[in-house]
Amino acid sequence: MPPRKRAKTTQKEAEDAASSSPSASDSEAIDRTPLSPYDITKTHRFIEPGPVVLVSTRGKAKNARPNLMTVGFHMCVQHEEPPLLGVCIGPWDYSFKALKETRECVIAVPGVDLAEKVVDIGNCEGDKVDKWAKFGFTPVEGEEVRAPLVKEALANFECRVKDKTMVSKYGLWILEVVCAWVNEEREEKKTFHHKGDGTFVLDGEGLDLQERMTKWKEYQD
Amino acid sequence: MPPRKRAKTTQKEAEDAASSSPSASDSEAIDRTPLSPYDITKTHRFIEPGPVVLVSTRGKAKNARPNLMTVGFHMCVQHEEPPLLGVCIGPWDYSFKALKETRECVIAVPGVDLAEKVVDIGNCEGDKVDKWAKFGFTPVEGEEVRAPLVKEALANFECRVKDKTMVSKYGLWILEVVCAWVNEEREEKKTFHHKGDGTFVLDGEGLDLQERMTKWKEYQD
Repeated sequence: MPPRKRAKTTQKEAEDAASSSPSASDSEAIDRTPLSPYDITKTHRFIEPGPVVLVSTRGKAKNARPNLMTVGFHMCVQHEEPPLLGVCIGPWDYSFKALKETRECVIAVPGVDLAEKVVDIGNCEGDKVDKWAKFGFTPVEGEEVRAPLVKEALANFECRVKDKTMVSKYGLWILEVVCAWVNEEREEKKTFHHKGDGTFVLDGEGLDLQERMTKWKEYQD
Repeated sequence: MPPRKRAKTTQKEAEDAASSSPSASDSEAIDRTPLSPYDITKTHRFIEPGPVVLVSTRGKAKNARPNLMTVGFHMCVQHEEPPLLGVCIGPWDYSFKALKETRECVIAVPGVDLAEKVVDIGNCEGDKVDKWAKFGFTPVEGEEVRAPLVKEALANFECRVKDKTMVSKYGLWILEVVCAWVNEEREEKKTFHHKGDGTFVLDGEGLDLQERMTKWKEYQD
């Protein structure tokens, strides 16, 4: 829980930004229901707990088929200005090529109702299978990147590669979150965490210790 | 869940390594009960689910007081050869100086019964408070590093700094796990995950999807 500067962006500002972005005119016709704009400076609320995530990519070619992969090696690197994530995707992953050539992806946080599909996604190859079609996920056009949002996810974070200094050594990409979406209508809000061996732990009870968090009150709004 | 090469080290080998390490003669008298040696190539089983962790450090000076801090920004970077973790600790953290000068620390995974203490540790300053004494944690000498193990934790990972290329930009350290310990006698094995705003989610139900994990059977032993 490292302290960093105060978030300046509110939910209202996030909505305004989304609706006034340069591509807003193109996207007016895009129906993203039930996704709503989400404040990117609150990305850590979804990622810091360490859920299994999906990474959505789409290669550079005009007709490139989007792909999905499953990732458990990721972290928050910075809360804001800008919000940064770290994620391990190596050349052994089919998504690596698309990420490398486009420098863009979407990190989607699936609910536990999708756990079996998410594991199956991690156990087949994007060059052989259209994972979106096979597993029944709905690609939705994002605001800032070409890789599609995952309509069925709890939240989607559109990302651009910020730093690839550590990609050759560790497959570790630093991503900047540039736009975010949340599905507030979703009933199942629990996520799931990989225990590294094919077993998972689901979100259980909540614990509110905000009163003891005297140092970073600014993250509680 | 990136695929990487097969673990060569078994629990038996981990125990042998611990007992035959160069410092074994020094440590014969150290009572680490109830901690047992743990296979470092299975570090991801504790870290990949994304629990809040404690970081233990001890400065270079002979009489330096050990410190503890609370961290939610961390990840697995590599399963093995060697196992690597990423963790964000910036110059705004008191532990930064000790980590920088010694290039060593211990990552400890606390159980949920320690949640309040762990949050309090994250909300006071190591230069003003002896956190070990104040919160009643027991420092135990490790095998490979000077920073103490946390006796009360579920697991302890002794780490050396592998790479600090990204420390100046993001406070992101790459750590190599060099020795590990687990407390198998502990009744409360649930961990807790920070939702980024002073609220937490505890480990809930388990979900076994090993049969669907066809690609990385080697991580299931």
